[in-house]
Amino acid sequence: MKAIIFDGNLKYLTDYPIPAPRENEALMRVRLAGICNTDMEILRGYLGFHGVVGHEFTGVVEKAPEPASALIGKRVVGEINCGCCECDFCRTGLERHCPDRTTLGILGRDGAFADYVALPVANLRPVPDSVSDVEAVFTEPLAAAFEITEQAHIRPTEEVLVLGDGKLGLLCSFVLDLTGAHVTLAGRHATKLNLAANRGIDTVCVSMEALSEKRRFDVVVEATGSIEGFETALKHTRPRGRIVLKSTVAGTQSMNLAPLVIDEITLVGSRCGSFGPALRALTQKHIDVTPLVSGIYAFEHAREAFEKAQEKESLKTLIDFR
Amino acid sequence: MKAIIFDGNLKYLTDYPIPAPRENEALMRVRLAGICNTDMEILRGYLGFHGVVGHEFTGVVEKAPEPASALIGKRVVGEINCGCCECDFCRTGLERHCPDRTTLGILGRDGAFADYVALPVANLRPVPDSVSDVEAVFTEPLAAAFEITEQAHIRPTEEVLVLGDGKLGLLCSFVLDLTGAHVTLAGRHATKLNLAANRGIDTVCVSMEALSEKRRFDVVVEATGSIEGFETALKHTRPRGRIVLKSTVAGTQSMNLAPLVIDEITLVGSRCGSFGPALRALTQKHIDVTPLVSGIYAFEHAREAFEKAQEKESLKTLIDFR
Repeated sequence: MKAIIFDGNLKYLTDYPIPAPRENEALMRVRLAGICNTDMEILRGYLGFHGVVGHEFTGVVEKAPEPASALIGKRVVGEINCGCCECDFCRTGLERHCPDRTTLGILGRDGAFADYVALPVANLRPVPDSVSDVEAVFTEPLAAAFEITEQAHIRPTEEVLVLGDGKLGLLCSFVLDLTGAHVTLAGRHATKLNLAANRGIDTVCVSMEALSEKRRFDVVVEATGSIEGFETALKHTRPRGRIVLKSTVAGTQSMNLAPLVIDEITLVGSRCGSFGPALRALTQKHIDVTPLVSGIYAFEHAREAFEKAQEKESLKTLIDFR
Repeated sequence: MKAIIFDGNLKYLTDYPIPAPRENEALMRVRLAGICNTDMEILRGYLGFHGVVGHEFTGVVEKAPEPASALIGKRVVGEINCGCCECDFCRTGLERHCPDRTTLGILGRDGAFADYVALPVANLRPVPDSVSDVEAVFTEPLAAAFEITEQAHIRPTEEVLVLGDGKLGLLCSFVLDLTGAHVTLAGRHATKLNLAANRGIDTVCVSMEALSEKRRFDVVVEATGSIEGFETALKHTRPRGRIVLKSTVAGTQSMNLAPLVIDEITLVGSRCGSFGPALRALTQKHIDVTPLVSGIYAFEHAREAFEKAQEKESLKTLIDFR
């Protein structure tokens, strides 16, 4: 089958073996898959992953064991973390923190940039007909945005600042805007900020005007992906306010945690989320993700998809296996 | 009057003017006052404070304006932060975060290491007869320990680790133990740890045995006052767990926040608390603070009190103005 693998180098293969689903696993024919920043990190050595890359996808179930055979022929998306099913995390729906987990295209499990992908049946979520393939591919990153409201109670009376106008920052601003809170998105790219402005979200282009030093928010979401993001977040959080950290910035940085104690600020580390809320929001058309698509590339042009994904003005690039 | 002031040097004066209470302020004759780590920080230049030092005290009201004159003759303790009474923080009982606040013996307001101290009537809390002067002086540091349960819901089924066996760490372990949670106190001083062990709290003397690297807690309270404390806390917090930061370690340190995001850990900065819960716990004898007293010194021997406070094996030293 066609597959994009990383073994120290990124390779576009046409003779990769179709995965053999294990017990309780289904086999999906991939339709569309999205390139995520984590994929770019993997190409730089993140977690030392080798294998088929990619974890954002939608596909059609080709094989599924009983009692899940009713899924065959259905279009699905798949939760990316596969737990041991036995630890406290797995038993409470937090497979994404199982210490023995594998993660699709990230940790110990071949991913979705291929004609076929295997996942446990328990990870699959049927996609309603009203949700397009393009929309469905956004389930995973949108779930990461909903993880904020899963972890933190965002009140509709609160002032929220989202730092960073990349894919994650935009999706976070969209989700937080649904809470009724007043959301301000700060970023460096007028074209990206416009996608939020088009939804009626306040934006500040920090390359054109500075955020007032005096302005303090109840909640600040750090989604810049840069080392300076945390300090900016701290500067703009009110006493007793909250900072949600979405960026996994690798490497150590020099920082002072004393202001966190003095102002009694709460810092919430936040990563992946459950697919349910994201899929509902897409189905109900509460969130339109399609403006975030910067390009759809056939497998034969996948190299261009990766190049496009690295451009500053790019948002989501997709690889088409249909 | 007698007063201990800091003006770049620590001075023991006998001719300092008695404070003139402002409108809405009461004047207290100080009975007993405690030396806090923050006082030691002030002597090293913290916040650039100059004036009468000290913020932990109990005293008897000598003067109070109407309608608070019923307080005259009563023994009281005093909340240390004096807000503007008008901002959102003050109106919601969070004077301790008022941007225009003064703080007793710490910021813009003469403190309690003196024969007399002035505070707004609204800050005073009468001390029941059953609470001794020594116990009452602990109201302020004990309130800082209760601030943890004010900010974070500690479940009785949780495993809690407190790092640091200083005054604050001990008081935190005492308060958290009351929640029903299983508390482990880790520190370097067998004699201090014994004070917790005597209450039935599990202790680990980290200079004698290491905390198992594998052991992860639901909640870790960082009260070591050292720069390494945060990293140790991170190492021992389970995914989705919480770290409560009580130490205000000055200066920047090199750290990596990525594990916080990957494990979705919440970091809660925590400082002073309201006096109510602490005073109730002292009145109901839920917590015995008297074993933490390392010495009581008359004003004439106050210099020794400060020296004693700096000894490694010391806990709370008190200055007697009775």
